Amino acid sequence: MTSHGQAAWELLLPAAAAPARRRGRALQEALRDAVRSGRLAPGTRLPSSRALAADLGVSRGLVTEAYEQLTAEGYLRSDRGAGTWVGEAARGRPGGTPARGGAGTPAPGRGTGTAGGSGPATRARAADARGTGDGPHARGAGAPRVRVDFRPGTPDLSLFPRSAWSAAQRAVLARLPHPSLGYPDPRGLPELREALAALLTRRRGVVADPERLVVCSGVAQASTLLGFVLRARGHGAIGVEDPGSPEHGRLFSSTGLDTLWLPLDGEGLRPEPLAASGVRAVVVTPSHQFPSGISWSAERRAALLAWARAVDGHVLEDDYDGDFRYDRAPVGALQGLDPERVVYAGSVSKSLAPGLRLGWMLVPGELLAEVVERKRTMDLGNPVLDQAVLAEFVTRGAYDRQLRRCQRAYRERRDALLAALAEHLPGTEVSGIAAGLHVIARVPGRYGPTERFLARAAAAGVVLRPLEEYGTARPGDGDVRLVIGYAHLAPSVVAAGIRAVAAAVGRG
Amino acid sequence: MTSHGQAAWELLLPAAAAPARRRGRALQEALRDAVRSGRLAPGTRLPSSRALAADLGVSRGLVTEAYEQLTAEGYLRSDRGAGTWVGEAARGRPGGTPARGGAGTPAPGRGTGTAGGSGPATRARAADARGTGDGPHARGAGAPRVRVDFRPGTPDLSLFPRSAWSAAQRAVLARLPHPSLGYPDPRGLPELREALAALLTRRRGVVADPERLVVCSGVAQASTLLGFVLRARGHGAIGVEDPGSPEHGRLFSSTGLDTLWLPLDGEGLRPEPLAASGVRAVVVTPSHQFPSGISWSAERRAALLAWARAVDGHVLEDDYDGDFRYDRAPVGALQGLDPERVVYAGSVSKSLAPGLRLGWMLVPGELLAEVVERKRTMDLGNPVLDQAVLAEFVTRGAYDRQLRRCQRAYRERRDALLAALAEHLPGTEVSGIAAGLHVIARVPGRYGPTERFLARAAAAGVVLRPLEEYGTARPGDGDVRLVIGYAHLAPSVVAAGIRAVAAAVGRG
Repeated sequence: MTSHGQAAWELLLPAAAAPARRRGRALQEALRDAVRSGRLAPGTRLPSSRALAADLGVSRGLVTEAYEQLTAEGYLRSDRGAGTWVGEAARGRPGGTPARGGAGTPAPGRGTGTAGGSGPATRARAADARGTGDGPHARGAGAPRVRVDFRPGTPDLSLFPRSAWSAAQRAVLARLPHPSLGYPDPRGLPELREALAALLTRRRGVVADPERLVVCSGVAQASTLLGFVLRARGHGAIGVEDPGSPEHGRLFSSTGLDTLWLPLDGEGLRPEPLAASGVRAVVVTPSHQFPSGISWSAERRAALLAWARAVDGHVLEDDYDGDFRYDRAPVGALQGLDPERVVYAGSVSKSLAPGLRLGWMLVPGELLAEVVERKRTMDLGNPVLDQAVLAEFVTRGAYDRQLRRCQRAYRERRDALLAALAEHLPGTEVSGIAAGLHVIARVPGRYGPTERFLARAAAAGVVLRPLEEYGTARPGDGDVRLVIGYAHLAPSVVAAGIRAVAAAVGRG
Repeated sequence: MTSHGQAAWELLLPAAAAPARRRGRALQEALRDAVRSGRLAPGTRLPSSRALAADLGVSRGLVTEAYEQLTAEGYLRSDRGAGTWVGEAARGRPGGTPARGGAGTPAPGRGTGTAGGSGPATRARAADARGTGDGPHARGAGAPRVRVDFRPGTPDLSLFPRSAWSAAQRAVLARLPHPSLGYPDPRGLPELREALAALLTRRRGVVADPERLVVCSGVAQASTLLGFVLRARGHGAIGVEDPGSPEHGRLFSSTGLDTLWLPLDGEGLRPEPLAASGVRAVVVTPSHQFPSGISWSAERRAALLAWARAVDGHVLEDDYDGDFRYDRAPVGALQGLDPERVVYAGSVSKSLAPGLRLGWMLVPGELLAEVVERKRTMDLGNPVLDQAVLAEFVTRGAYDRQLRRCQRAYRERRDALLAALAEHLPGTEVSGIAAGLHVIARVPGRYGPTERFLARAAAAGVVLRPLEEYGTARPGDGDVRLVIGYAHLAPSVVAAGIRAVAAAVGRG
């Protein structure tokens, strides 16, 4: 199934959920609408009928019928044996949804650690590279320049639900008993721990006992907390995925741990190098690996847990964007398979705002007391009002609504990115598109080499990050591998950015 | 304004938000309901009409009218000039709506570290020792027992300015630019750093450059941040005042530093033991020493700074309650004398609420980059919205108003304590009364010995802390030395508590 097919696939999900007797028609209508509205761009290749049927959970016959019908109608064109494409018939795609705001301080991973930049100055001054959110834009006296920042790591901050959050704040201040304003329980407010445990059980398939849930300021703090605990237990190093987030190195180094890159393949961490590494703890992103975008295979999940049990080790599962999966139900978290070996960590940084500094971890019983005591000495616990507001937000269903809203917006942006890449940089392979806020694009070598590609893009006002910044791999095949964050950019900005890059780098 | 009044206040908030034409009636109904349901117990003293009106943001006339109406109806009784109380008319409190008020989890220093108790369990289970906030109260089948907790460290949480804070929250959410919701500057929100620098310069006489101000989660985190930085620079230990807060030991130990008790006399740290100790860093509370209550003499301040320069050392000034000084202007902070040697730390824990986890430190230039990088790896920075709200609060003068309001309330409670001690435990000497939220009481030996005194008080439902828990000194003169926190208790509760202790320990 090609990546373009994925785009279609998710548009069709509601149709696939229609009652059986209307499902075939619903599917055809959805597909037709997608082509007509331009969400499926002309030339987009559709998945095979077998693949699409499997993904949608419908019979293959329904898909075949829909393809045939729409081919007959001219929306699609088919080449028996070669595939099905969106036809040229339905042109005239409307200019683009209103542009949202730009990205705050986008950066890899969790908004930190652009190469070499760890001090406050680097963080604060990313404004220059910020997407303006209104596409091509005249600057000064020179020619119009697009200024688009495709660095991953930041959600669309304009999606923060200000009114709903404000209402929850008011409700909380009106009802919170006075004693709750005192020194907090370092584990977090009980009502939030309960609300999150229920939410995570439902959404992420974790085993979530409120007694083992520790509210923290985000996955970065979860990493530091665990790092200190492991260091005190005699660990000297922790393994990280390669490719992965360079930020891990800085976080764990602050706790006295070295980090060891461990090679990844298309299924997850490769078992042999892991076993040979000598570490007894690793950080992984199995639901949507950062940055490659793969979802770990079931075998590799099992192998990792078997390894952890064998070495009496622990796994930190960084579920940094587990909430956003566009084409089918989210992959359940690893923690659900072995809550005694896996520390699960997540946050609201991608779903609400990184500025809230609010996250959670589920901690194995054996580590709990040590993690909580670390949390206590680090800051005595998270601020209470924010915790109560989030509890209110989760409990009244507003958090689920927010996730759905983000999901819709981000899917639309992803589709815009895929369409733009297909149109302006043909031959580009895209992976990791099923979830999250970024993709990996492999641009054919004729547009390269990488340095020239990035320099020309930058000169055109487009900031792009090469995959090689996120690990040790240097494939040497001449292709240009990029980590493209799209969630913080309006569809029109995404399209304009890719168009500008293509114009700058030429046709190779 | 007593804490009993505060209980009313919160119940009345929804009424105060009613449309203007229905507000008066809504207020009366809410007040009547509160009395009828027992949420306001008979004998509870209501706030003055002026105070309540200010807190609710309604005209004073509305409150006066409500008081008069309900007095006429028999729900309240009034004594012109003396106040308004809940009357006996509406008895039959249903089994007890949970009593509001009381201190959350009060404990020495900053709400942590009851002797030996550092885990979550100890923190969560202080309810037994909690002041009920409604004075003498029958429990079970036995005789009426006062349950009053005089442990220091917690302010009156009912003084938290809910309406004003809520208004500031709304204002912030309406105006904050989207990018501010992104990953924060680990030093803190620029507007808050500027507002705090101005505030601290004005109120505490510090040298406050916003560029050197780091927002953190409170003095505990400031200690941990500095501890890690000093440890990385090769320090092995840090000196603490004796008597002082045992919590320092736990905080610094988490950073790898030992703590060394350094003896204090009536003027400050004694110079010779300090010089002989070999440490190059100390934590001090010079404005209102915890727990002795002394203010360091000018000579000792100068000697400490001379020492710091001589050993190329640093001083952490914990200005934990520098805001509250009752009888003259606050003593200026030590930091103002040498901002290159002194790390100044403070928080809103005593002025607003510990649950906000919001504080600040002023850092010498030499240490700044290291402290900021530590803050970054610890949590990436404090939550943004809280910071923006506090900035708003400080800038519009609401923080100064809150300080004045607390100052009035706490002075009244201190006076109630002094009067009760003089009346019920004559011969008791009290020190440290000029400032802060607690005093040291030296009760004549005829009431002792200490263990018996504490046990009898506890049997009467009154929790008291002996001074010897806060350091190494054991005077051996037979007197009973107590650290009495009063700020979180209404004057009537303070008086009832001391009365109960006196009755329990006898006349010696």
